[in-house]
Amino acid sequence: MSRIALIIQLLLIINLSFSQNTDKEVVRKIFDNVLTSNEAYNNLEYLCKNAPGRLLGSEESIIAVNFMKDYFEKLGADTVFLQEFSTPAWKCNSTEVSILVDGKEIQLRADALGPSPSTQGKGLFADVIEVQGLEELKALDRVGIQGKIVFYNRPVDMKIVSTFRVYGSAIDQRYYGPRVAAEMGASGVLVRSVGTRIDTFPHTGSTGFKDIKIPCAAISTVDANILSKALKDNNALQVKMIIDAEDIEEITTYNLIADIRGNEFSDEYIVVGGHIDSWFNSPGAHDDGIGCVQSADVMRIFKELGIENKRSIRVILFMDEELYQSGGNAYADYSDANNVNNYLALEADAGGFTPEGFTVDASDSVVGIISGYQSLLEPYGIHYIKKGGSGVDIGPLKKFGVPLMGYRTDSQRYMDLHHSAYDTFDKVHIRELQLGSGNMAAIIYLIDKYGL
Amino acid sequence: MSRIALIIQLLLIINLSFSQNTDKEVVRKIFDNVLTSNEAYNNLEYLCKNAPGRLLGSEESIIAVNFMKDYFEKLGADTVFLQEFSTPAWKCNSTEVSILVDGKEIQLRADALGPSPSTQGKGLFADVIEVQGLEELKALDRVGIQGKIVFYNRPVDMKIVSTFRVYGSAIDQRYYGPRVAAEMGASGVLVRSVGTRIDTFPHTGSTGFKDIKIPCAAISTVDANILSKALKDNNALQVKMIIDAEDIEEITTYNLIADIRGNEFSDEYIVVGGHIDSWFNSPGAHDDGIGCVQSADVMRIFKELGIENKRSIRVILFMDEELYQSGGNAYADYSDANNVNNYLALEADAGGFTPEGFTVDASDSVVGIISGYQSLLEPYGIHYIKKGGSGVDIGPLKKFGVPLMGYRTDSQRYMDLHHSAYDTFDKVHIRELQLGSGNMAAIIYLIDKYGL
Repeated sequence: MSRIALIIQLLLIINLSFSQNTDKEVVRKIFDNVLTSNEAYNNLEYLCKNAPGRLLGSEESIIAVNFMKDYFEKLGADTVFLQEFSTPAWKCNSTEVSILVDGKEIQLRADALGPSPSTQGKGLFADVIEVQGLEELKALDRVGIQGKIVFYNRPVDMKIVSTFRVYGSAIDQRYYGPRVAAEMGASGVLVRSVGTRIDTFPHTGSTGFKDIKIPCAAISTVDANILSKALKDNNALQVKMIIDAEDIEEITTYNLIADIRGNEFSDEYIVVGGHIDSWFNSPGAHDDGIGCVQSADVMRIFKELGIENKRSIRVILFMDEELYQSGGNAYADYSDANNVNNYLALEADAGGFTPEGFTVDASDSVVGIISGYQSLLEPYGIHYIKKGGSGVDIGPLKKFGVPLMGYRTDSQRYMDLHHSAYDTFDKVHIRELQLGSGNMAAIIYLIDKYGL
Repeated sequence: MSRIALIIQLLLIINLSFSQNTDKEVVRKIFDNVLTSNEAYNNLEYLCKNAPGRLLGSEESIIAVNFMKDYFEKLGADTVFLQEFSTPAWKCNSTEVSILVDGKEIQLRADALGPSPSTQGKGLFADVIEVQGLEELKALDRVGIQGKIVFYNRPVDMKIVSTFRVYGSAIDQRYYGPRVAAEMGASGVLVRSVGTRIDTFPHTGSTGFKDIKIPCAAISTVDANILSKALKDNNALQVKMIIDAEDIEEITTYNLIADIRGNEFSDEYIVVGGHIDSWFNSPGAHDDGIGCVQSADVMRIFKELGIENKRSIRVILFMDEELYQSGGNAYADYSDANNVNNYLALEADAGGFTPEGFTVDASDSVVGIISGYQSLLEPYGIHYIKKGGSGVDIGPLKKFGVPLMGYRTDSQRYMDLHHSAYDTFDKVHIRELQLGSGNMAAIIYLIDKYGL
């Protein structure tokens, strides 16, 4: 090797380790900042307490959007705007489910699935058929199902470690159950809540109707056990269901977008976000108020530390992840129509517990680059950066080839509260939240600095 | 390679992968079992609700020991016995700390440190000197300290990620603070609670007196802020301290030991345990009821699944980790006197949150063997097995060359509750507890099967 080549190589090595030291220092500064900041936590408290049940189309959803819009303006974002779009919506006013046992009416704790139709007249009274899943129902004679309420009561499989997969073990009943029962002539559907506790909280969620819509609701796991027992004692038991809900043909609503301009490639956007809506029955702390306030916190961190970003950083609080996923689609359409160059998108919508890692939905080479940052983030709880899913709201950007990422946290407590009134502010731990904001800010800093 | 050599090698490979498959299956069966068992969780509820404040020498400590003894007998342990020993003890009956502000007495939430002496007569009334740590106190003129109460008020450093290290950032004030203040002539000590929340719970703990003992107590972080502000408003403020506590010269107490006999090397003991005592002010859910019920759960799992152990598995619930560490020392003495061959010891005393890993305090070769099991446990939340500390109770076995291990969990929530009344049963999540029992059982299964 020539002397000059040697010197150049040494300089490169020095430069590289200088970079790594600098990165280590910047990441440390990010965590010094975030672990002593209450802002995201306070924002989350506001959302949960002043805008619970912020489903698409609700007043609460707009309270939430306006509150966060003010916050971005206070942070000094270069641009803050509401990306308007139109979509069908749905509203649930009330859900009542009861049974008559020994002449006494017992209320079952229930919440309609979205978008359940209302029951007609004085409500639905019908016999009940309990099944342990779709296959069992499909094997039955259609005649016996006519006009009846189908009760899907297969519990989740608690032996699975990831609670997202526990959820997956029974979610078919909620998502496909009403469609299949409707096609077979049932008049209504009750579903055992898909959650990891035996408790009195109904867990709602979306259901995938096709042509025929029938009233449908989730009942809590405790009430599912009560109903199942009552049916064993008396198989002529009737259930009364009264759902007051309405489809809304079209509303105008918004994604909230806030940018800080990049100083080199300002037309390339690194997107980070969560969804601002929650189910009508839920304060939406972990799902997904926390993803919103953490994404906003990324901007706060960049601003407070004066980190210079080459690319523009765009925080998006998506509307309507829960019901029709209209916000994610609307942003993809908007990007397409306006030639927005989304450089990468990261979504935080998997709970705000202690950090676990990032998943990357992109080419192997991009996964390789991003996973190279793992060692820098390991001291802050990132155990893996690997190929995997991202998030529902950013999913529609995939068709444009945008690299997508998801922030992942420990799942053990998540399905206790998902889509239920149990998803309250007090379930969020401030340091777990802060570590999430910090890791999101750090990975965006690294991706922006080194590119993909 | 000869044909026979090739065949032998193939057989070895087949045998090895068969073993790995078998291990994978056994580990899966362990988690199938543990994730559907409530027994450890129910045992913990009993300990927290029927034997809170189970400090060495208390009635509650014996209630706890007897309850767990019955449980081991019910499980069908081959041997269950109380390993008796004598030790000094200490008892706190009450702690009162107050200040007079504008003629109004304000109570500060306080708990004596162990083993604080009682205050004399009608209590201690004295001026207060606030310092931010030992160095600040040592730099002061001794004359100004005579007869005064020293108030250590340096907060923990919240910028540190591991809360054990956050704790480490201020624990010198609690452990050495009273000793140093006493040597300099102070009459008493108040310490800002070493915890990660600003709340009203005092966090007690042990303090390391040398020759002179003076009354000392921890006050909650909220009350530390109140006191500090009151001192700024009025530096002639006096504090009143009344501590009713007593040293007990000698008591007889017990470690609880339960064994299942090994079928090959029955005189080699794989020890797994936690400590049954807790501070007088705490239900001791995470510290360390959970370590006890998880250790007992290891035995339940082996029994229920019929896992054959070559070596004897010994569950020890140690008395007195908190005050004088007499139980750990007594077991080491007992082992020495009776030539007990402790093959390895694992302690669970770092909280019962979502699993993180195991640390191993042993030779590099032993660390190498045990860390080889990481990939088998990764699906169950074990992110690392590495060289590190073990536990206070098994520490005295180190001098005999026993390989030691510690089970580690996510620390973010731990220092919120450590040594305080906030360490209640409801802070424990059943699945996080179950994953701990499962990982402990799995690693013991592997260590027993393959040896060290």
